[in-house]
Amino acid sequence: MADPRFFTRSGVYTLARIAEATGAALHHGAPEQTAEDLAPLDKAGAKDISFLDNIKYADAFRASSAGACFVRPKFVEQAPKGMALLVTDDPYGAYAKCAMLFYPATFEPFISPQAHIGKNVQMGKGCRIEAGAWIGDGVVLGDGCHIGANTTLSHCILGNNVLIHRGVHIGQDGFGFAPTKEGLLKVPQLGRVLIGNHVEIGSGTCIDRGAGPDTVIGDFTKIDNLVQIGHNCNIGRFVIIVSQAGIAGSTQVEDGVQIGGQVGIAGHMVIGKGAKLAARSGVMRDINAGETVGGAPAVPIKDWHRQTAALAKLTKRTES
Amino acid sequence: MADPRFFTRSGVYTLARIAEATGAALHHGAPEQTAEDLAPLDKAGAKDISFLDNIKYADAFRASSAGACFVRPKFVEQAPKGMALLVTDDPYGAYAKCAMLFYPATFEPFISPQAHIGKNVQMGKGCRIEAGAWIGDGVVLGDGCHIGANTTLSHCILGNNVLIHRGVHIGQDGFGFAPTKEGLLKVPQLGRVLIGNHVEIGSGTCIDRGAGPDTVIGDFTKIDNLVQIGHNCNIGRFVIIVSQAGIAGSTQVEDGVQIGGQVGIAGHMVIGKGAKLAARSGVMRDINAGETVGGAPAVPIKDWHRQTAALAKLTKRTES
Amino acid sequence: MADPRFFTRSGVYTLARIAEATGAALHHGAPEQTAEDLAPLDKAGAKDISFLDNIKYADAFRASSAGACFVRPKFVEQAPKGMALLVTDDPYGAYAKCAMLFYPATFEPFISPQAHIGKNVQMGKGCRIEAGAWIGDGVVLGDGCHIGANTTLSHCILGNNVLIHRGVHIGQDGFGFAPTKEGLLKVPQLGRVLIGNHVEIGSGTCIDRGAGPDTVIGDFTKIDNLVQIGHNCNIGRFVIIVSQAGIAGSTQVEDGVQIGGQVGIAGHMVIGKGAKLAARSGVMRDINAGETVGGAPAVPIKDWHRQTAALAKLTKRTES
Repeated sequence: MADPRFFTRSGVYTLARIAEATGAALHHGAPEQTAEDLAPLDKAGAKDISFLDNIKYADAFRASSAGACFVRPKFVEQAPKGMALLVTDDPYGAYAKCAMLFYPATFEPFISPQAHIGKNVQMGKGCRIEAGAWIGDGVVLGDGCHIGANTTLSHCILGNNVLIHRGVHIGQDGFGFAPTKEGLLKVPQLGRVLIGNHVEIGSGTCIDRGAGPDTVIGDFTKIDNLVQIGHNCNIGRFVIIVSQAGIAGSTQVEDGVQIGGQVGIAGHMVIGKGAKLAARSGVMRDINAGETVGGAPAVPIKDWHRQTAALAKLTKRTES
Repeated sequence: MADPRFFTRSGVYTLARIAEATGAALHHGAPEQTAEDLAPLDKAGAKDISFLDNIKYADAFRASSAGACFVRPKFVEQAPKGMALLVTDDPYGAYAKCAMLFYPATFEPFISPQAHIGKNVQMGKGCRIEAGAWIGDGVVLGDGCHIGANTTLSHCILGNNVLIHRGVHIGQDGFGFAPTKEGLLKVPQLGRVLIGNHVEIGSGTCIDRGAGPDTVIGDFTKIDNLVQIGHNCNIGRFVIIVSQAGIAGSTQVEDGVQIGGQVGIAGHMVIGKGAKLAARSGVMRDINAGETVGGAPAVPIKDWHRQTAALAKLTKRTES
Repeated sequence: MADPRFFTRSGVYTLARIAEATGAALHHGAPEQTAEDLAPLDKAGAKDISFLDNIKYADAFRASSAGACFVRPKFVEQAPKGMALLVTDDPYGAYAKCAMLFYPATFEPFISPQAHIGKNVQMGKGCRIEAGAWIGDGVVLGDGCHIGANTTLSHCILGNNVLIHRGVHIGQDGFGFAPTKEGLLKVPQLGRVLIGNHVEIGSGTCIDRGAGPDTVIGDFTKIDNLVQIGHNCNIGRFVIIVSQAGIAGSTQVEDGVQIGGQVGIAGHMVIGKGAKLAARSGVMRDINAGETVGGAPAVPIKDWHRQTAALAKLTKRTES
C-alpha cells in the first residue's frame, strides 16, 4: 500500500467501477469485488490490483497473489487461480487511470510566503508556488500551474496546467558570446521562454531564454530531470525528452519527437515530426520525420546496430 | 521588439550612432535614419536592425524587411531594396555591441533579505545577491558580482564582475574517497575555489572545492549550464565550457580552450592552450596546444571523421 | 595551510601520534617531530605533511620540501634528504585519516529558520538543516543527517549519518507516462525513496521516487554531483556513482559497483556485484558480477580497447 505518510487514498473501489474508469473488460472475478490499493506484482495481495505490461515480468505475474490485475488478452490463460482479470490492450494505460482513481493528482492552491514573487507577475487561478521558488518581474503564469520548491523563473510566459518540478531554472541568459578581437563579448539575450499548456518539466532542468527569437516549448510536452535546452530552441507539442539530454541553441524539434536519455543535439538542427532518438545519440544533422536514429554521430538505428556488430566482428578478426 | 515586461530599452539610435558604437561602416542608408529596436531577420520591420552571420540564414536576409542590417561585405549586393547596411567583417560582434547599446546589461546593487549570508563574508562594491542565494562563512566577493537566486557558495574567493546564474553550487566537498580495507574513507577536502574576474557560470553548474590544492577558474572564462568541475581542476583564462560537460579532478585546462557540450575529460589530464574539444568528446589523454579532437576516446578531429566514415563503409560491406 | 577563513585546525600533532592514527610506520624522522598541517607535495614546507599515491607525482615527491610524507615502501629510497617518512601500503587512505585528525568533519546540529519543514516530519538527533532546504510532509530523517542548502526532500526515508549536499532533489515524481490513444497519461508515482546509513549525495543530483515499488539507495553508497537516478532503481551498498551518470528506471545496481562519470544505464538492467563501468559507458544489457566494461554499447573493457584500436587501424587503411 502506498505509504499514508505521503499519499492519501481517495477510497476503495469495485472492479466494476475500475473497469468503467479504465476501459478494461472484467474477465474473471465478480463486479462487486473490491480493490483497496495498487501494488506491483510481487508485492500485491488479495486486496490489491496490479498490472502486467513488460513481458519481463510474466513470471512475476504467474506467481502473483494480486486480487486483480490488468493484462493483455493473450495472458489470460496464464493467470494464477483466483486472480480477477481486467483485460485490455493497454495494461499500463489502464493501470495509470486506475492509479489516478485511487490517488488523484490534485493540489491546494497556495503561494508560499517563502517564495519570491517579482513585480508585475501575472498569475492565473489555482496556482501553487512552493517555498524557495523565485519568480522574476513580469513573468506570466496561466491557471493551475504548480511551481516547485527552489525553482527560478524569469522572462517567461507559461500556459495553463504547467507542472514545474524543483530546482528548475527557466529564462536565464542563453550562452551567447561573440568572439571578437577584444575577446568574448556577451550578447544581450532579448527573447523569452514561451511554455504551452499541460507541459511538465523535471527537477534540475535548465531552459535558456531566446537571444532575440523566443525559446518555445509546445503543449503536452514532457521534459525529465537535468535536461539542458539552449536559447531559441523551438520544441513542439507532445515531445518527450528524457533525463540529461541536451539540445543546443536554435534547434527545432517537431511534434511527437521522442528524445532518449543523455542525447545531445547540435545547434540549428531540425528534428522531424515523430522522430525517435535512442538514448545517448549524438545528433549532428537534421533528422527526417518518423526516422529512428542511434549512435554518435547518429545514424538510422539499423545502421547503428550493424556498426556495433561489425565493430565486434572486426575486433575478433584483429584479435586472431 | 523585446518584450517590455522583461526588457527596458535605453533609447532610439541613429545609424550613425550605431555605426560608431559597433565599428561597422554604413553602406546604404542615411546616417540620420533611426533604429528603434533589434529583431531577427524574419521578424524585423522597417524600424528594426538585424544581422546576417550564419550563412544558413542568407535566404532570410534576402527576404527580410529589416530597416537596417549588419552584414559582411560579400553580402552587400544581395540586400533587399531599401535596407540600410552596416558592413563589417564581424556581423555577430557588431550586433552584440548594438544590442548592448539598446539594452545595457546593468543591475542595481542589492542584497535580498531572503538570501543567507554567512559570518565574515567579505563583499566588494556594487554586488547583487538574489533571494535564496546561500553564501557560506568567510566567502570573498569582489566588486560588481551578481549572484543568482538559489545559488550556493562556500569556501571560495571571487574576483570582480563575476556573474553566477541560478542554482549554481560552488565550494562543496569534492568527491574524494579513499578505498581502504575498512571501506570508503571520506577524505577531508581542504582547498578552496578561486574564481577570477569577468567569469560567468551557468545555472545548475557545480564546482567542487580543492582537496588540498585549490580549484581555479581563470579570468574571462565562460561556463554554461549543468557543467561539473571536479576538485583541484585548474581552468585557465578565456576558456569556454559548453553545457553538461564534465571535467574530472585535477585536470588542467589551459587558456583559450573550447570545450563542447557533453564533453567528458578524465582526471589528471592537461588540455593544451587553445585546444578545441568537439561536443561529446571523451578525453582520456593529454591534448596538445591548438589540437582539435572529437570522438570517444577523443582523437584528432580528422581521424574521428575518418573513423565514422570507415565504420559506415564497413557496415555496408558487412551488409552485402 | 588550509585557509583559516574556511577550515579550523584541531591542533598540532607529533609524527608518533599521526603514525598511530593512520597505521603508517614511521621510517625516517623522530617520533616527537611535529606536523602543523597538510599540503600537496609541491606546496608543502618543513612543517607540513604530504602524501605520494599516484605515480604521476613521483617527481614532485623527489623535489618536495615536505617535512613528512606518507609513501609506499618502494619509494623510501627516493625520498629527499631530511624528509620524515610514514610508510604504508595505502598512502592515500593514511593521508585521509591524517586529514581527519587535523580537520575533523563535525557539524553543529541546527535547523535554519530559512528552511521549510513540512508537516509530520520526523527528525533524529543531531541533524543539521541548512537555509533554503525544503523538506516535504512526512519525510523521515535518521540521526546525524546533514541536509545542504536549497536541497528538496519529499516522499523519502533517510537512515543515519546521511550527508546530502546542496540543490539535491529527492522524491519528485518519476518520469512515468503511459502513451495512450488519448495522448500521454501521467502515471501517479506511489512509491518512496529509501536511503540507508552513511550515504552521501552530491550537489544537483536528482533521485526520483518509485512508481509503486520504492527507489532504494543502500548503506555507505556515495553519489557525486548531477547524477540522475530514475524511479524504482535499487542501488546496493558501497556503490560509487561518479558525476553526471544517469540510471534509468527499475535498474538494479548490486553492492560495490563502481559507475564512472557520464555513464548511462538503460532501464530494467541488473549490474552485478562489484562490476565496474568505465566513464561514459552506455550500458544496454545486464552486466555480470565483477565484470569491467567500457564503450557504448558497453562491452568487456578489453574488447572496448580492441575496438578502438581496430578502428584506428581501419582508418589508417582507409586513408592509404
